Amino acid sequence: MISGIIPPIITPFDENGDPDMEALEHNLARWNETDLSGYLVLGSNGEFVYMNREEKIKVVKKVLQNTHEDKTIIVGTGLESTELTLGLTKQMGEIGADGALVLPPHYYGGFMSFDALKDHYEYIAENADIPILVYNMPKFTGITIPERLIATLSEHENIVGMKDSSGDLALLGKYISVSSKNFDVLVGTANLILGGLVLGASGGILALANLAPEECCQIYQEFKKGRIERASEIQIRMIPVNEAITSKYGIKGLKKAMDIRGYKGGNCKRPLKNYIFTEKMEKDLKDTIEKGLKIEEKGL
Amino acid sequence: MISGIIPPIITPFDENGDPDMEALEHNLARWNETDLSGYLVLGSNGEFVYMNREEKIKVVKKVLQNTHEDKTIIVGTGLESTELTLGLTKQMGEIGADGALVLPPHYYGGFMSFDALKDHYEYIAENADIPILVYNMPKFTGITIPERLIATLSEHENIVGMKDSSGDLALLGKYISVSSKNFDVLVGTANLILGGLVLGASGGILALANLAPEECCQIYQEFKKGRIERASEIQIRMIPVNEAITSKYGIKGLKKAMDIRGYKGGNCKRPLKNYIFTEKMEKDLKDTIEKGLKIEEKGL
Amino acid sequence: MISGIIPPIITPFDENGDPDMEALEHNLARWNETDLSGYLVLGSNGEFVYMNREEKIKVVKKVLQNTHEDKTIIVGTGLESTELTLGLTKQMGEIGADGALVLPPHYYGGFMSFDALKDHYEYIAENADIPILVYNMPKFTGITIPERLIATLSEHENIVGMKDSSGDLALLGKYISVSSKNFDVLVGTANLILGGLVLGASGGILALANLAPEECCQIYQEFKKGRIERASEIQIRMIPVNEAITSKYGIKGLKKAMDIRGYKGGNCKRPLKNYIFTEKMEKDLKDTIEKGLKIEEKGL
Amino acid sequence: MISGIIPPIITPFDENGDPDMEALEHNLARWNETDLSGYLVLGSNGEFVYMNREEKIKVVKKVLQNTHEDKTIIVGTGLESTELTLGLTKQMGEIGADGALVLPPHYYGGFMSFDALKDHYEYIAENADIPILVYNMPKFTGITIPERLIATLSEHENIVGMKDSSGDLALLGKYISVSSKNFDVLVGTANLILGGLVLGASGGILALANLAPEECCQIYQEFKKGRIERASEIQIRMIPVNEAITSKYGIKGLKKAMDIRGYKGGNCKRPLKNYIFTEKMEKDLKDTIEKGLKIEEKGL
Repeated sequence: MISGIIPPIITPFDENGDPDMEALEHNLARWNETDLSGYLVLGSNGEFVYMNREEKIKVVKKVLQNTHEDKTIIVGTGLESTELTLGLTKQMGEIGADGALVLPPHYYGGFMSFDALKDHYEYIAENADIPILVYNMPKFTGITIPERLIATLSEHENIVGMKDSSGDLALLGKYISVSSKNFDVLVGTANLILGGLVLGASGGILALANLAPEECCQIYQEFKKGRIERASEIQIRMIPVNEAITSKYGIKGLKKAMDIRGYKGGNCKRPLKNYIFTEKMEKDLKDTIEKGLKIEEKGL
Repeated sequence: MISGIIPPIITPFDENGDPDMEALEHNLARWNETDLSGYLVLGSNGEFVYMNREEKIKVVKKVLQNTHEDKTIIVGTGLESTELTLGLTKQMGEIGADGALVLPPHYYGGFMSFDALKDHYEYIAENADIPILVYNMPKFTGITIPERLIATLSEHENIVGMKDSSGDLALLGKYISVSSKNFDVLVGTANLILGGLVLGASGGILALANLAPEECCQIYQEFKKGRIERASEIQIRMIPVNEAITSKYGIKGLKKAMDIRGYKGGNCKRPLKNYIFTEKMEKDLKDTIEKGLKIEEKGL
Repeated sequence: MISGIIPPIITPFDENGDPDMEALEHNLARWNETDLSGYLVLGSNGEFVYMNREEKIKVVKKVLQNTHEDKTIIVGTGLESTELTLGLTKQMGEIGADGALVLPPHYYGGFMSFDALKDHYEYIAENADIPILVYNMPKFTGITIPERLIATLSEHENIVGMKDSSGDLALLGKYISVSSKNFDVLVGTANLILGGLVLGASGGILALANLAPEECCQIYQEFKKGRIERASEIQIRMIPVNEAITSKYGIKGLKKAMDIRGYKGGNCKRPLKNYIFTEKMEKDLKDTIEKGLKIEEKGL
Repeated sequence: MISGIIPPIITPFDENGDPDMEALEHNLARWNETDLSGYLVLGSNGEFVYMNREEKIKVVKKVLQNTHEDKTIIVGTGLESTELTLGLTKQMGEIGADGALVLPPHYYGGFMSFDALKDHYEYIAENADIPILVYNMPKFTGITIPERLIATLSEHENIVGMKDSSGDLALLGKYISVSSKNFDVLVGTANLILGGLVLGASGGILALANLAPEECCQIYQEFKKGRIERASEIQIRMIPVNEAITSKYGIKGLKKAMDIRGYKGGNCKRPLKNYIFTEKMEKDLKDTIEKGLKIEEKGL
């Protein structure tokens, strides 16, 4: 069972665009000290779309070597082609990943019908050696996984859960409602983590947990203890911070925010590297973090 | 303070498209027996866009005559023109409405800037004799009220709250977070009522409360008592029913659903009257209601 | 038959928001000297959504009194309600309008099905005393009139044409292809006037013709004479000017542009009046007009 | 200079998803007999997103071996990463491609700013050995290349043209207007080929030219001869056929349509292979082709 808070970890790159292994180790060392229940490697925030296979393997191996056994390691393996996705998933299983998060193929969006997606996921689940999670990410893919597809896929013994990044809490409620008992629905955005937990989500895969793992875990824990008001207070405070590092400033903002918080964000790969982050944006980001995470109080 | 559950009531029309006063009385008599805290008259579900001024006044007067004093009566008065909106709002105040819900002008969507909307709402609030509520309804208007506009408007002593029908819980959280103390944020869709209450909303204006006032009030009451799991169970069950009577089948579906539940839905006005509701749709609607509202158990 | 170039005329308002009859007369006097084949009164650019019935009648009467007999006067009469639209259409017929352009009802967008729209248009066409034109305006209404609806409506003897403002030339081609012989398809945006004429449109109802009637008529005339290259040169030059007075700066920009060109734009009504038009925007508008309309050459 | 009609050729696959070299040869042999001025290999219609590097090279080599010298061979080489796109472009140059069509990176859509895209294209153009064409394809990428980026990029000596598949003729007009003299703007959809030529496009890269190269070339030739009405008649007839093989039925429809016309469409790769093409769809496709291409007359 996958539960608790998991960050979709960023991949720090050096000036040349190569994965910065030292920075990655530094981040893992800090995250390992928190209550995070695992890591998602090569998710959207990990810039997987820019990396070749060698880089992907190198990064996943590094994460596997630098985490405690109790942390679940999930790897993003989704590609457009069914065969190529299976190939990458098998490879990640071989080197030790605990599960694979599979983004739906989406380039030919309108034609990724129920049947096409059903076959895609079932074929991969059938032939992979590790459990599969479905990834609903309409903002980046233009595709919303239909609830009846989740109803069907959740019956497959090797499809064990999903990450829903739709931002639509009612849809998440429907996924929970239609899926089978042992299927874990994970909230894909920190904005809705409390709302999702209230409806029965088992946890969240949250970009914000890269830089604010404590706060994210606290929402989870306060909820578990029935202290809704306390959880709500933190949730409300997190929304502007979360938006700054996602929709507003993207991965570049997320990496800058990690620097501000003492992690090592590193560079982005090209072309994202050339998205200009102005001083004004940096100041706004800093202010938002200070206000939302109450840095001074904590002496950070 | 506006709190609790309020239905945006439908306007039943007869075959000729005239308001059916008897059907309206019948519905009010039943609603009056529930814990609903008030009624929104002439909202989107009330088909206000099809009604002339005489019809609007007639319907509001009927509602005012047929409700207990403790129920809050809010009237939808939004038109495209600032002056015409003020005129209608004043008239509704004169006949006894407790407040006005004002849809933003939106025909020239892209040009309804911060300044244009700020002036619109402030001018109306300044000159109207009843409190004003802002209505965020992106699906029908194409406009999302910016959070910083709510921050500003909530400071006005005669702008007392808002209905947020965006379906975006994070946005609702931001409205709550930026608005002043005495400003009531009301959830505009039954899909998010529990999530909204958790974040601090004071209540909800819910289409679903037309036909399922008891269930909607129960979510509110269980939440107030701290019984989150029980509230969550009802919330999850309500989502498919709510979608059937809103995005899926619209007002015609809502009216049919009311008939099924023993209320009097009546006809829609033209052109909506000619939206064909097939037998297959009717069956699906019936099944959805039976499953979600557990009619048999209740002996309805 | 409706052909040639027709401006959807703006309504100049004074400081208080009342129609400025003198300014309107001034504009009509100048337009009357051009080759414009008629006027559309109370279209989107006429701010019809802000005007009450008295104002509408007053403006239409003024136009009727101040034009030559050979100019076709079409009036926008579309409202949400079928009955109210018919009522306004009849009234406009009584005071002398040559035809009515009917915007589809759209507030309940998703439910404005083929049947609902078919009944709406046929009922109005059946009962009105003047010819009806269909208005396809997806940007403002969210509704695209389906081509098979045009195929059907174009068979009705009192539905004589349409204005297509979709900006989608292929769709316009389909409207032309499916409609009956005597049905006139008019291009609704200056950006596509030449492309539309090439595909068989009979003319255009163009916002740009408010301030550049000569250039718009010239495209039409050069096309008619088979001088495609000359028409193309003007067309290409008009695109940035047209965008400045439509999508970029809206009606306020259109009115400012008219002032620059010696017409009388007047004020907008509230709330559009409060859309702030900055100096920077005004300068950009001026530059765009100068470049596109080659003002200096013409000594304006 | 790139002009005339070029099909973005499909890649026929066998049952196992391997490129079917024999089917490809068959198609090339037929296309070679027409007036097509070249081929685009590995475009969207070529299912490049599903192919690994070996398959890509194999297909391009086959095309190069099976075409006459006078046909221009352009290869789609766009990937998300700047470095990987350059790598593929260089490789295609080495094996003999005449140019590369580069889709913009788009996964992190909102952050693909002017600067990010400018650097991406200029870096590739700087370092590649073959000319580069920009590919504007909003439907699949969610990104519209800004006109001022085209103004800038068209100044680069190794960026020689663009394909615009936006479907927005006014935008195409602006690209033509702002780009430098020797920059070729190619229409990316058969729906707008005539409209584009009228505005000054040098030709078109048209999916429809896979199955109807004669008709597409005829529009081009009639236009060149100044026979606008004849070109317009064919253009209008092509629109429904083009929509059937693009937005309506996608690549699977395109491949079926090729079979109907005596070409060899072959299979799609998974997951697109599992998009179910029903008998009803096949019948509609057949009818549309028969009507639009007047097959009987031609004795096909």
